[in-house]
Amino acid sequence: MPGTPPTRFVYLGPEGTFAEQALRTISAAEHGSRTPARSVPEALDAVRVGDADAALVPLENSIGGAVGVTLDEMVDGEPLMITREIVLPVEFVLGARAGTTLDTIRTVAAHPQASTQCRGWLGTHLPDAVVVDVLSNGAAAASAATGEYDAAICAPIGAARQRLAVLADKIADHKDAVTRFALVSRPGPAGPPTGDDLTSLAVYIAHDRVGALLNVLMELAVRGVNLTRIESRPTGEALGRYVFFLDCNGHVADDRLGEALRGLRLVCADVRFLGSYPRHRWTATAGEQPTAAAPTDRSDLDYADATAWLARLRAGDIT
Amino acid sequence: MPGTPPTRFVYLGPEGTFAEQALRTISAAEHGSRTPARSVPEALDAVRVGDADAALVPLENSIGGAVGVTLDEMVDGEPLMITREIVLPVEFVLGARAGTTLDTIRTVAAHPQASTQCRGWLGTHLPDAVVVDVLSNGAAAASAATGEYDAAICAPIGAARQRLAVLADKIADHKDAVTRFALVSRPGPAGPPTGDDLTSLAVYIAHDRVGALLNVLMELAVRGVNLTRIESRPTGEALGRYVFFLDCNGHVADDRLGEALRGLRLVCADVRFLGSYPRHRWTATAGEQPTAAAPTDRSDLDYADATAWLARLRAGDIT
Amino acid sequence: MPGTPPTRFVYLGPEGTFAEQALRTISAAEHGSRTPARSVPEALDAVRVGDADAALVPLENSIGGAVGVTLDEMVDGEPLMITREIVLPVEFVLGARAGTTLDTIRTVAAHPQASTQCRGWLGTHLPDAVVVDVLSNGAAAASAATGEYDAAICAPIGAARQRLAVLADKIADHKDAVTRFALVSRPGPAGPPTGDDLTSLAVYIAHDRVGALLNVLMELAVRGVNLTRIESRPTGEALGRYVFFLDCNGHVADDRLGEALRGLRLVCADVRFLGSYPRHRWTATAGEQPTAAAPTDRSDLDYADATAWLARLRAGDIT
Amino acid sequence: MPGTPPTRFVYLGPEGTFAEQALRTISAAEHGSRTPARSVPEALDAVRVGDADAALVPLENSIGGAVGVTLDEMVDGEPLMITREIVLPVEFVLGARAGTTLDTIRTVAAHPQASTQCRGWLGTHLPDAVVVDVLSNGAAAASAATGEYDAAICAPIGAARQRLAVLADKIADHKDAVTRFALVSRPGPAGPPTGDDLTSLAVYIAHDRVGALLNVLMELAVRGVNLTRIESRPTGEALGRYVFFLDCNGHVADDRLGEALRGLRLVCADVRFLGSYPRHRWTATAGEQPTAAAPTDRSDLDYADATAWLARLRAGDIT
Repeated sequence: MPGTPPTRFVYLGPEGTFAEQALRTISAAEHGSRTPARSVPEALDAVRVGDADAALVPLENSIGGAVGVTLDEMVDGEPLMITREIVLPVEFVLGARAGTTLDTIRTVAAHPQASTQCRGWLGTHLPDAVVVDVLSNGAAAASAATGEYDAAICAPIGAARQRLAVLADKIADHKDAVTRFALVSRPGPAGPPTGDDLTSLAVYIAHDRVGALLNVLMELAVRGVNLTRIESRPTGEALGRYVFFLDCNGHVADDRLGEALRGLRLVCADVRFLGSYPRHRWTATAGEQPTAAAPTDRSDLDYADATAWLARLRAGDIT
Repeated sequence: MPGTPPTRFVYLGPEGTFAEQALRTISAAEHGSRTPARSVPEALDAVRVGDADAALVPLENSIGGAVGVTLDEMVDGEPLMITREIVLPVEFVLGARAGTTLDTIRTVAAHPQASTQCRGWLGTHLPDAVVVDVLSNGAAAASAATGEYDAAICAPIGAARQRLAVLADKIADHKDAVTRFALVSRPGPAGPPTGDDLTSLAVYIAHDRVGALLNVLMELAVRGVNLTRIESRPTGEALGRYVFFLDCNGHVADDRLGEALRGLRLVCADVRFLGSYPRHRWTATAGEQPTAAAPTDRSDLDYADATAWLARLRAGDIT
Repeated sequence: MPGTPPTRFVYLGPEGTFAEQALRTISAAEHGSRTPARSVPEALDAVRVGDADAALVPLENSIGGAVGVTLDEMVDGEPLMITREIVLPVEFVLGARAGTTLDTIRTVAAHPQASTQCRGWLGTHLPDAVVVDVLSNGAAAASAATGEYDAAICAPIGAARQRLAVLADKIADHKDAVTRFALVSRPGPAGPPTGDDLTSLAVYIAHDRVGALLNVLMELAVRGVNLTRIESRPTGEALGRYVFFLDCNGHVADDRLGEALRGLRLVCADVRFLGSYPRHRWTATAGEQPTAAAPTDRSDLDYADATAWLARLRAGDIT
Repeated sequence: MPGTPPTRFVYLGPEGTFAEQALRTISAAEHGSRTPARSVPEALDAVRVGDADAALVPLENSIGGAVGVTLDEMVDGEPLMITREIVLPVEFVLGARAGTTLDTIRTVAAHPQASTQCRGWLGTHLPDAVVVDVLSNGAAAASAATGEYDAAICAPIGAARQRLAVLADKIADHKDAVTRFALVSRPGPAGPPTGDDLTSLAVYIAHDRVGALLNVLMELAVRGVNLTRIESRPTGEALGRYVFFLDCNGHVADDRLGEALRGLRLVCADVRFLGSYPRHRWTATAGEQPTAAAPTDRSDLDYADATAWLARLRAGDIT
């Protein structure tokens, strides 16, 4: 639970993927247990039933978009809460068994998203190689290690774990690609506000009309709450029925965001609170912060001033 | 001040106008002193300097519209607060000295607004009479009493006070015409919410653009606060610069209205709070309530539910 | 009718008021007939029945606000159309019979709005004089000419017409006060767009709720149409029922404004079109333009570009 | 091109998937050539370079959500246009070589989305079978046909093509699941309006703020245009930058939608028109229409009335 530091971690496996790499940026995870799960549902269920304290799962990728299964599983079943986000640069490498050279590579194993992201590099450096789809970046590395395929597109950690030689690194076409992961726990009070927090929500709209989503956005806009992310997912009932996943600037403990949440509760068929947590901070070595906090129309100072003014009015001081 | 029941009342004179009639519907005024003022500014200034505890002034008429001088004087100078509204049916009578009959009337004294409101009746019953403009309903009655003119259009109280015979009553073309008056005091805490209250505001908008007024209305709409009245008045600086006078459903002590007020404070150049007070209640003899409270999109119960939900979220209960 | 230049003019009298002064700024009126009317309804009815081609009536004053009777009479009865606006600086003078000096003045005749606007000057220069309310600026000048009162606050044209000496000019407290007049004709096609036009509308809203006015403003805002003026007037049915008088930037022939009008027609209970006409142009001698055209979010060029793009889409060119 | 009926079709392969099944509901495709493509990019590029006249690709699934690669490829590269939508019930079957019975099945090949959608059925009927991820529904059927795995979750057409026995049909947990496909051609004029059309758009927003998306929705809402679908996709530049894919009721040739498109062009950084085409019509055998056309606030009749009214105003008829 939030409050008790987690010691038993589960992550989307297999070993050697970006999820493991992301988990190892958390110092508590370095000292705790780290168990790979075969799927996002398995990882989240491990937390739900108490087999793990926290699960590290992917939320979205700046190229591939939202990870639908994570969003869907967060809102189906017992409530869970995001307590932390980790944003990891996606750096693909071309790994192969020691001694392999580029000109001898005829087959490359890759997860379809990985080969899509490296299409430019492959066209230039391996125009004649056959790219074979496999089911994960970890599986790609493993298949190169066994010699099933000549090379693999994988994460640096995957190459290291399979003892592959790195023939080329940073081979993705978008150099700034990142994946955003969430650390998810069982519910409890959110950590304290840090001044630069995000709040994640899932909102359900009763009617499939433009006005309903408009109302949701107005509740936020009127309070000066900015969205950093909006994703729609089908609810599964029918085409045209969506649940919207929103990430907003601010913390559930803030006046401003609290007011907006109350407003959403009133206009939406349902609102699921998915956590308030600090925005990911970039260290110098990890490069530039890719998304700055969006500036808001109204400073928190203005908000505090307006609250004080209202208190004066209520006390009869209208000067 | 609100809290201390007022005993010294001032009202827009002269004696025998609708304002005096409205004041006498307040029982405290029946037992206190009642002094006519020559103008709205004089009445309000008497309260500001402490010569009176409360002033009774007209706010608007369902035919003639807002009483501009009252609105302007409420926001210029020291703050004042509306503590009560009185809505009075406007019933014009034709008064004349005893013995006068309709067929002998050649001249009728009337305030221009009064003769406008009785235009139909005059055309039918006194088609050949000359209507002479005078400066108030009270002055009209007085001029008929002295014989300067043959008859007067005036309030029932004006006819009584000048001992005029009432040759015809309810002569206004709109039978449902009403005038709304405000009882105004020096600032203090508003009276307690009654469950059916109004709040009066004056809001200043920095820019003369459609978007600025749109923002004001959104702050209200998003909280489900309804407007029962909106009036624009020039600020006096230039054409196109306005202050808007708003009457909203609700009380400054309500969560919902408090939130809307805080929002207005953030988007407006200035907001002047002019009081929260009970909506006028109609007695059986005064006829039907002409305007019902507008229903709101969200009940207060829903609002309380949303507030409780937010408190649960903050405590970590997201089930 | 628009198209045929008017030759028979009527204006709100009596002679010697600001309305006559405004009319004489129109060259056609200098050469045509100019008849004073006793009231705004009389002036407008003269046009409706064909006794005059055009009526010059006041719309609003930067200090006193809207002229309610003009707004009400424009929307009651047969439709009329504004074909021109005239904005006139309001310059009050103190007029008196020749030989009068300030120190001998004991009584000053003034329309209540005039004395209100000159309150500061009177307090400084004639602190002991009694101000007597009269029914028009023209009547004030006339009463000083007959010697009934010692002096009058009136328009320059009123002093000239009554051959009064001007003891002091520009005595209003707000030096920039202006009155805006409309020249009103029977309906017909509006004059051609000039690139800097205004369009006047009266819109009726079915329900007395904040959302209804919000919808009106959105129809304008979404098209980048700015309001230069918004006035609410009671419809006379009950308190809380309003008709809104809007002045918008643009001409009925413009794409942008046409689209907004069509939108208003769809969301309002009723829309009355009151004319498209050139914005008043200030000459050098009349001083500074008090209100500049509000800049719009989207230039007309952008609008034309979007129209051309839509035409290309419809033709199948989506490059 | 729209206008010329396509004869050379390409679809997302391999053979035996739902895409082939969808394509065969089009009579022109029954008579033309049908070539499977290895990927969505390959299918769309075949149309772009002229190797095919039309491509059939999946847009979204009512369970799995948007097919990101289709959306991304539609807006990257040369413009393409949707000319038709096909909505197909997703009916998974369990196929196996003749003679196989349920109690002998130890391994089941399935695409991960397929096994997710049949999780309930698998848990009940094959609780002990190992589910093996494969890369497509067609590959699953093929692997069961070769005996690599004991059974496959696949489309009815896939079982038929691989001559598998169907051990169980309609095994998906959501009985109403559908997949929506688009038939995509090179640009040209859209087909004529049918009275029940959809228009697909991709809109780019300059700033990542709540207000920008709010503006987009307002442009639609103000014209009474309903959204039947909204999907966000990352633009690939950074987290938090999105392109929104919108499906709206209406046709580019409609007044109402044309006006909304023009408005979007003015407020968005970019708008890509992706086609106007008839809404999918359900035949009796295919079951109930899962999503009805959302009713709009304003009928097309009202819209035509408002257009006629505007024309009258412009001609000078304001009665």
